[in-house]
Amino acid sequence: MPVSPETSYILNSFSFLIHGVLVMFMACGFAMLEAGLVRTKNVATICLKNIALYSLAGVMFWISGYNLMYLNVDGGLLGTLLPWVGDTSALQSADYVDGGGYTAHSDWFFQMVFVATTASIISGTVAERIRLWPFLLFVAVLAGVLYPIQGAWHWGGGWLAEMGFADFAGSTLVHSAGGWAALAGVMIIGARKGKYTKTGQVSPMPGSSLPLATLGTFILWFGWFGFNGGSQLALGSAADVTAMSIIYVNTNMAAAGGVLAVMVLTQIIYGKVDLSMVLNGALAGLVSITAGPDTPEIWQAILIGGVGGMIVIITVPLLDRLKLDDVVGAIPVHLCAGIWGTLAVPLTNADASFITQLTGVVSIGLFMFFGSLIVWYGIDKLFGVRVSVEEEFEGLDKMELGLEAYPEFGMGSHKI
Amino acid sequence: MPVSPETSYILNSFSFLIHGVLVMFMACGFAMLEAGLVRTKNVATICLKNIALYSLAGVMFWISGYNLMYLNVDGGLLGTLLPWVGDTSALQSADYVDGGGYTAHSDWFFQMVFVATTASIISGTVAERIRLWPFLLFVAVLAGVLYPIQGAWHWGGGWLAEMGFADFAGSTLVHSAGGWAALAGVMIIGARKGKYTKTGQVSPMPGSSLPLATLGTFILWFGWFGFNGGSQLALGSAADVTAMSIIYVNTNMAAAGGVLAVMVLTQIIYGKVDLSMVLNGALAGLVSITAGPDTPEIWQAILIGGVGGMIVIITVPLLDRLKLDDVVGAIPVHLCAGIWGTLAVPLTNADASFITQLTGVVSIGLFMFFGSLIVWYGIDKLFGVRVSVEEEFEGLDKMELGLEAYPEFGMGSHKI
Amino acid sequence: MPVSPETSYILNSFSFLIHGVLVMFMACGFAMLEAGLVRTKNVATICLKNIALYSLAGVMFWISGYNLMYLNVDGGLLGTLLPWVGDTSALQSADYVDGGGYTAHSDWFFQMVFVATTASIISGTVAERIRLWPFLLFVAVLAGVLYPIQGAWHWGGGWLAEMGFADFAGSTLVHSAGGWAALAGVMIIGARKGKYTKTGQVSPMPGSSLPLATLGTFILWFGWFGFNGGSQLALGSAADVTAMSIIYVNTNMAAAGGVLAVMVLTQIIYGKVDLSMVLNGALAGLVSITAGPDTPEIWQAILIGGVGGMIVIITVPLLDRLKLDDVVGAIPVHLCAGIWGTLAVPLTNADASFITQLTGVVSIGLFMFFGSLIVWYGIDKLFGVRVSVEEEFEGLDKMELGLEAYPEFGMGSHKI
Repeated sequence: MPVSPETSYILNSFSFLIHGVLVMFMACGFAMLEAGLVRTKNVATICLKNIALYSLAGVMFWISGYNLMYLNVDGGLLGTLLPWVGDTSALQSADYVDGGGYTAHSDWFFQMVFVATTASIISGTVAERIRLWPFLLFVAVLAGVLYPIQGAWHWGGGWLAEMGFADFAGSTLVHSAGGWAALAGVMIIGARKGKYTKTGQVSPMPGSSLPLATLGTFILWFGWFGFNGGSQLALGSAADVTAMSIIYVNTNMAAAGGVLAVMVLTQIIYGKVDLSMVLNGALAGLVSITAGPDTPEIWQAILIGGVGGMIVIITVPLLDRLKLDDVVGAIPVHLCAGIWGTLAVPLTNADASFITQLTGVVSIGLFMFFGSLIVWYGIDKLFGVRVSVEEEFEGLDKMELGLEAYPEFGMGSHKI
Repeated sequence: MPVSPETSYILNSFSFLIHGVLVMFMACGFAMLEAGLVRTKNVATICLKNIALYSLAGVMFWISGYNLMYLNVDGGLLGTLLPWVGDTSALQSADYVDGGGYTAHSDWFFQMVFVATTASIISGTVAERIRLWPFLLFVAVLAGVLYPIQGAWHWGGGWLAEMGFADFAGSTLVHSAGGWAALAGVMIIGARKGKYTKTGQVSPMPGSSLPLATLGTFILWFGWFGFNGGSQLALGSAADVTAMSIIYVNTNMAAAGGVLAVMVLTQIIYGKVDLSMVLNGALAGLVSITAGPDTPEIWQAILIGGVGGMIVIITVPLLDRLKLDDVVGAIPVHLCAGIWGTLAVPLTNADASFITQLTGVVSIGLFMFFGSLIVWYGIDKLFGVRVSVEEEFEGLDKMELGLEAYPEFGMGSHKI
Repeated sequence: MPVSPETSYILNSFSFLIHGVLVMFMACGFAMLEAGLVRTKNVATICLKNIALYSLAGVMFWISGYNLMYLNVDGGLLGTLLPWVGDTSALQSADYVDGGGYTAHSDWFFQMVFVATTASIISGTVAERIRLWPFLLFVAVLAGVLYPIQGAWHWGGGWLAEMGFADFAGSTLVHSAGGWAALAGVMIIGARKGKYTKTGQVSPMPGSSLPLATLGTFILWFGWFGFNGGSQLALGSAADVTAMSIIYVNTNMAAAGGVLAVMVLTQIIYGKVDLSMVLNGALAGLVSITAGPDTPEIWQAILIGGVGGMIVIITVPLLDRLKLDDVVGAIPVHLCAGIWGTLAVPLTNADASFITQLTGVVSIGLFMFFGSLIVWYGIDKLFGVRVSVEEEFEGLDKMELGLEAYPEFGMGSHKI
């Protein structure tokens, strides 16, 4: 006796909801990770940016994003520029009868939290010197226009989908897409004052709270089971839950591989294990497996994640050599490991081709990088994206928000 | 082929459990929010109060609360004063056969975490000057007597339910109920020393850690999907999961509306965006949608939440003018936005009437405010609710608990 | 109409996944709890150890742990030394047909997060003076060999299972097993310098951040619903969800009992309520109920948890008298309350016998204690487990990792 269509409908929808909630919590993970990795004087501002971008991304995805990504793409380049209106009578849809159905709102919720993730990637890279409102303007364009267009190419059923591009949960569509936007942003906004000296030295600017950064990483890891597991897009059959179980295991093991690879390598290279690098190793492992978490064996998942961690170790100093000042290491983690993960899919998935994967990576890369560059450039010319030197020195919390993240910090515990 | 009654029974019960766990985690959210918004010298005490009140509320809800709220209310004013005994043979109940059933314990668990939420609302308002045990005594009465009685009026099937009052997940029954109790408390206990000067000035007393407050807000937002989604009270049919999906989306968008409204308005009014106000804006948006998350369109949910955020901006200074010292802003968020949310239900729900909504808001308000006032007054006369001036100055952590939340704070990192 | 076998299969597997994710998040809870309870100079190191041990435990459980615990135990002492290979064609298994089935990977995932929990227990006890890599070597042996062998005795279907030993979710197999390993470790590594003076005094070394410790405790409580609830091992029938609902309620009430017992007792004994003791009371309540969360009435669950809390109050000073320096109190919480919880099962479960429970507690205790002692001793002789006196004084963060957890701590907020 199989699963009844109505039961499938419930389980498919509930999978979107519960996994979507886990992905929503990743916004908290990014906030804590970034709050831990910026300096004290910018902590409140990065918290504000994270809760604001999550809110704004959702609104923009409703206004234009969802339908631009999913409505009548039909193998093409983009959907339709219309606000989304959820069908509340989904019960009568054909999908419902054949057991593959789900509620319109559960699908929208799950897709919405993904665009918020993409936006979260950017805030860390350009932290500590970007102005609040220009940053949010970029987020609005990203969530409402840029992300949905490239998303339409694959998940919306556009030309990359027709080619057979394989990006299960978004190593490219979410993570490297966000990474390209961050890279364009950092090129427009420039490095923090004092980060690179005239003599070519790199000044370390250590984050204010490693336990907060660790908390953020654990929350992201926790949420990633929703990100990858929910991307099975269904729970209404034994085949779905079997795939979902494999995805959970591989997601976890890739993160573990990233952690262990970075630990061993930093111990060998630097003689000490670097915690913030290890945290980024976990995230790079997660990003790496995201393009294809359903096909690897466990040992392959560990290796894919481990190479992701290794990529972080290689690319973090490389970015510094290029004077690209990425405060939290989001470009190595999301862009570089995201590319790796996408290109690695054919290693374990016979249905994927390397050429098609490369086509997807390059085309989305070109679109997101240049699209973002134009938007960042326009915002900079119109409004200016960067705070003044004085504001940067004093800290964004005091200058932009007029408050302090830890007002009693350094004053003993008896102030007032 | 429909869902089998046993499958419905499983799904309905599991919805209570998994959503209840999300609501349980809101206790952690309140603890972090309040720990971030009080001053360093009172941080450990507020952590203790939060874990203690969650524990105590559960025990009291077992001893008297649940049955006072749900057993034989029959359109009346209250249920039966008896400890709750869970039926472990629920399998044979009539509910099970017709597909609407769930386990007794899953229902109890879900209702129990709601009373804990009500109690959590109060601790923040009266923080930094209330004594531990008198506070917990109030919580015991709240969870065991006050909350269940007004709860019986609507959710227990009492007179408000018969009138057609609509409060889906508790804008009034949970949030403004807790807010009224907090208001009564703050009137009895008075403002913190130095908060309001004789010349009419308001001294800002900024919270110790904005990242902790941000963490708490994100956890509350995360948990709210359980609060509102689980209040569908069933997952065993396509209609249930369709409603639940709409609820998830509207819950999220109302919070987003609260965030964005507060950001824009504080930017316009004060020239700067205030993070702690934004956090309260998110929460006010969530409280506002809680009375009716199942009927609005997305744009309506955003507006309902946005007005909730606006109410916070208006009522926070108003409370200060009245010298009502609400440390974390719980009265604006839970009481004021809770009233707004309840009165707004008829705007999107044709089955609700404004008069009935007003009747519910006023009657529950009168009962909770005066009931709480009497209990607070009695506790104050019998035991005294307020710490001494010296204890308040030195901080509750040192004086009531004999420890410090951050003992190495301000001493460099090499103490001991 | 009963649940279809395929629906059962989905629900059973999904229960493993979603509850497993909650247990995975307990790794974050342990990290925050321990980061809050160590001193500032060791905070980053304990964060690193926690993310590393979670990763490593998973890999070792794949390499040898799972099959040593579950493959062909057949009433004996241990399984088979082979890496685990997940059956991806579980759809055709006999289990699937009869409604008791689940996917191989979902089961593996759920069991894997349990071994990580066992490892997490140890890091707190030996914190602030253990070297990173020797610690991780112990974790590898624990997760790959020691834990699985004793696990095979009961959950793997070994000799204790045949005797009728009852340990539902691991008061003994997880918590006291980890506690015994921690005890052996602390005996080999010795107390922190200065903890016990020559005149017999105990120097308090208060933790750096009580809000972080509170956060960790709440996360553990939250995750414990997965730990105990998921240990029903099925969700595919009305009987399963009824049991699971009882488990959720009892888990919560035992924790509440632990909190309230510690509060009342520390108030009576010391005249003040000790927050860190209360946090451990919550955890001791949770550990106590874990051996049998499915059989007690609510009042029994509160009592079982309350006695667990009392045990913490008694054993914490006892350990100090024995100069066993357990930084976070993991031995009282996990070992002592774990023994209590296991022995208490026959009080509410007629199928359990006190003698069998004692046999399990003693045999697993002997195996884990002496097994761990040998491994700790070997690691110490080969590599040395303890940092130098200078490293301990300066802090592990600076000496082992070359960084600081809070680099701007004590410097005002304008450094750099």
